Amino acid sequence: MALIVQKYGGTSVADLDKIRKIAQKLALLQKKGNQLVVVVSAMGKTTDALVEMIYDLSDNPPERELDMLLSTGEQVSIALLSTALESLGVKAVSLTGPQAGMLTDSKHSRSKILNIDPKRIMEELSQGKVVVVAGFQGADQKGEITTLGRGGSDTTAVALAAALKADVCEIYTDVSGIFTIDPNMVKNARKLSFISYDEMLELANLGAKVMHPRAVEYGKRYKVKIHVRSSFSEEEGTIIREVTSLEEKFMVSGIACDVNLAKMAIIGVPDQPGIAAQIFTRIANAGINVDLIVQSIRKEQENDILFTVNKDDLPKTLSILNDVSDQIGAKEIYHDENVAKISIIGAGMANSPGVAAAMFKALADKEINIEIISTSEIKVSCLIKKDKINLAAETVHDTFMLGEGRLPLM
Amino acid sequence: MALIVQKYGGTSVADLDKIRKIAQKLALLQKKGNQLVVVVSAMGKTTDALVEMIYDLSDNPPERELDMLLSTGEQVSIALLSTALESLGVKAVSLTGPQAGMLTDSKHSRSKILNIDPKRIMEELSQGKVVVVAGFQGADQKGEITTLGRGGSDTTAVALAAALKADVCEIYTDVSGIFTIDPNMVKNARKLSFISYDEMLELANLGAKVMHPRAVEYGKRYKVKIHVRSSFSEEEGTIIREVTSLEEKFMVSGIACDVNLAKMAIIGVPDQPGIAAQIFTRIANAGINVDLIVQSIRKEQENDILFTVNKDDLPKTLSILNDVSDQIGAKEIYHDENVAKISIIGAGMANSPGVAAAMFKALADKEINIEIISTSEIKVSCLIKKDKINLAAETVHDTFMLGEGRLPLM
Repeated sequence: MALIVQKYGGTSVADLDKIRKIAQKLALLQKKGNQLVVVVSAMGKTTDALVEMIYDLSDNPPERELDMLLSTGEQVSIALLSTALESLGVKAVSLTGPQAGMLTDSKHSRSKILNIDPKRIMEELSQGKVVVVAGFQGADQKGEITTLGRGGSDTTAVALAAALKADVCEIYTDVSGIFTIDPNMVKNARKLSFISYDEMLELANLGAKVMHPRAVEYGKRYKVKIHVRSSFSEEEGTIIREVTSLEEKFMVSGIACDVNLAKMAIIGVPDQPGIAAQIFTRIANAGINVDLIVQSIRKEQENDILFTVNKDDLPKTLSILNDVSDQIGAKEIYHDENVAKISIIGAGMANSPGVAAAMFKALADKEINIEIISTSEIKVSCLIKKDKINLAAETVHDTFMLGEGRLPLM
Repeated sequence: MALIVQKYGGTSVADLDKIRKIAQKLALLQKKGNQLVVVVSAMGKTTDALVEMIYDLSDNPPERELDMLLSTGEQVSIALLSTALESLGVKAVSLTGPQAGMLTDSKHSRSKILNIDPKRIMEELSQGKVVVVAGFQGADQKGEITTLGRGGSDTTAVALAAALKADVCEIYTDVSGIFTIDPNMVKNARKLSFISYDEMLELANLGAKVMHPRAVEYGKRYKVKIHVRSSFSEEEGTIIREVTSLEEKFMVSGIACDVNLAKMAIIGVPDQPGIAAQIFTRIANAGINVDLIVQSIRKEQENDILFTVNKDDLPKTLSILNDVSDQIGAKEIYHDENVAKISIIGAGMANSPGVAAAMFKALADKEINIEIISTSEIKVSCLIKKDKINLAAETVHDTFMLGEGRLPLM
């Protein structure tokens, strides 16, 4: 008998038929003697529809009211899934985030979980019930309804699994696991049977939409075994877990590509202290994430600053740069949207010299020019021309032979 | 400065434009120095849509889950109305039933209010906020979400007005007040400036949809001044209040007609004790409301039992009667849908002999046959043929000169 926490996202509960199917699956799993806690998101596009309504009333709706509104989406899902279970003769109970003991801080629309009191859930489980919990939501000390922001339901599931000391937290999604690379880009992409928290965190931060970095981080902190798998099949997915033995640390576990970027360049900035801080503070205050920053001395007493932003943030970034360029005395501002980023991630990279070099050589062999390089302990990222990204993906995937299996440490 | 509780039903908040309009109205009213607590229902057909979904999953959904589901409808409305207010620069806060201190018993889908703790509402009012409360819902001692059943939002509003000692409870609806008779039936129907709780209770029980009897009863118990008025105009509606002076007690205040009835007859029932109890217990257990019961001795040791039910309950009632008729040895069961009920209501009726007789004479003058008569302290009801109901309505309305004003006591 295992205690299993499962999470189903919006597409998995998009309509009544899908809810019925999940109920049938849960019924079988319970029959086998498992205790089940199920976290669900709002149905399909419900959240989008609610957001649209409130923004029709106000350009700047109060975040408290936004939480009041959006939390109804998950509440609908839990009531329906519990009812579907009961109609199959499975005892079930739905719990809102607050009822499930989810205590958060008071930062509406981006709350952090402060504590989970699992008493109510444990009680219901001990009565043989499937416990269906609303993801994404909680309440603060005052009883105000809060939401956890992006990736909220994943975080709810992983946090509950930690609080309940569950055997596993299964994240059901529309892909069948974590792949060495996006299978739409490279044909012989391979599903990984497991991946370390750190590698998954890098992948998630690089835009792999399977799981939100926040939930992975939570899993890492509390050592929750996370199983990412498909809502639509029974096949095993990918386990995200702790990896300590050297045998399980591979040079490269996966490759991430990002084509939704813009490169910004500020040319001829005077070489004075504080200039970069001035620029990037302005950009950060506008809520824009900056990636891959390079500062290079082009001439004496003159710097060029290069960095990338998400393409959606390009107009805002440009207007800030144009605004700031006079103050700092920059000579020229330009941007380039014909760029893409390819990154390799591997927990063993730090112990394997030459991994980065192997990547650079692979790209050079195909005459792919590298514009910016950025590295971390377990990651190497290269900015290249966007029209070369597919070729680069194939080449790098082949170089590290990811189609056959991960290379052990050299 | 007054403390005003207002209630807007589903049609009044059916879309974003209507919500915006209500917000504008509230903004003006607050500017004049009033403290406002606003109770809202779910938007338009939201509740129906939710009910349809859950019944698609189960013929017999758990009532707890039904409450979990349906309570989201009002929660959406309060978040949107608060946001609309804030966008006009009016400080506002939305509160769910539980947050508003609405403590109920645990009978899901038909809970009774046990207590209201107005602390949170008072706090928010003292900060100059318009307080927007979700109607129809509350929570029990355990924190389980409950709903109040039919007429729930009216009851929420009246109960809050009582707990807050509000100056008035305004019920906004799609009619402009309480009329002497349905204006669609009789042209010179007149809007009443006030009506007593008891009269309104009779009218509500007779099917006047303007207010639920339960809410009127609550108002009567706590002496809440209730103002029923139109959402779509500024004109004064009808005040429901205590009427004690004889000057304000009229012979007849209003007339109610009900055409949605069926007459049932059980012919030739043996005259034995307990037979009627047996029949009506079965019917009551099926949740069917019975009205206008007459038992008459037709022959020695044989009774006929006549009664009316709502037309929607006809199939269920027939199947019960057919089932029971053998057991009790009834000779024949028949029913008639060509019936209607006309009732006159007046707080002064008890002190004015001859009111019932005047009604009977008016009907007889138009050759309208009365099949069943039922009276109470402040009401006389007659069952007649359905095709005569318009003629009867005109005649009775004229007889008591309701088009000109209510007749004082004779």
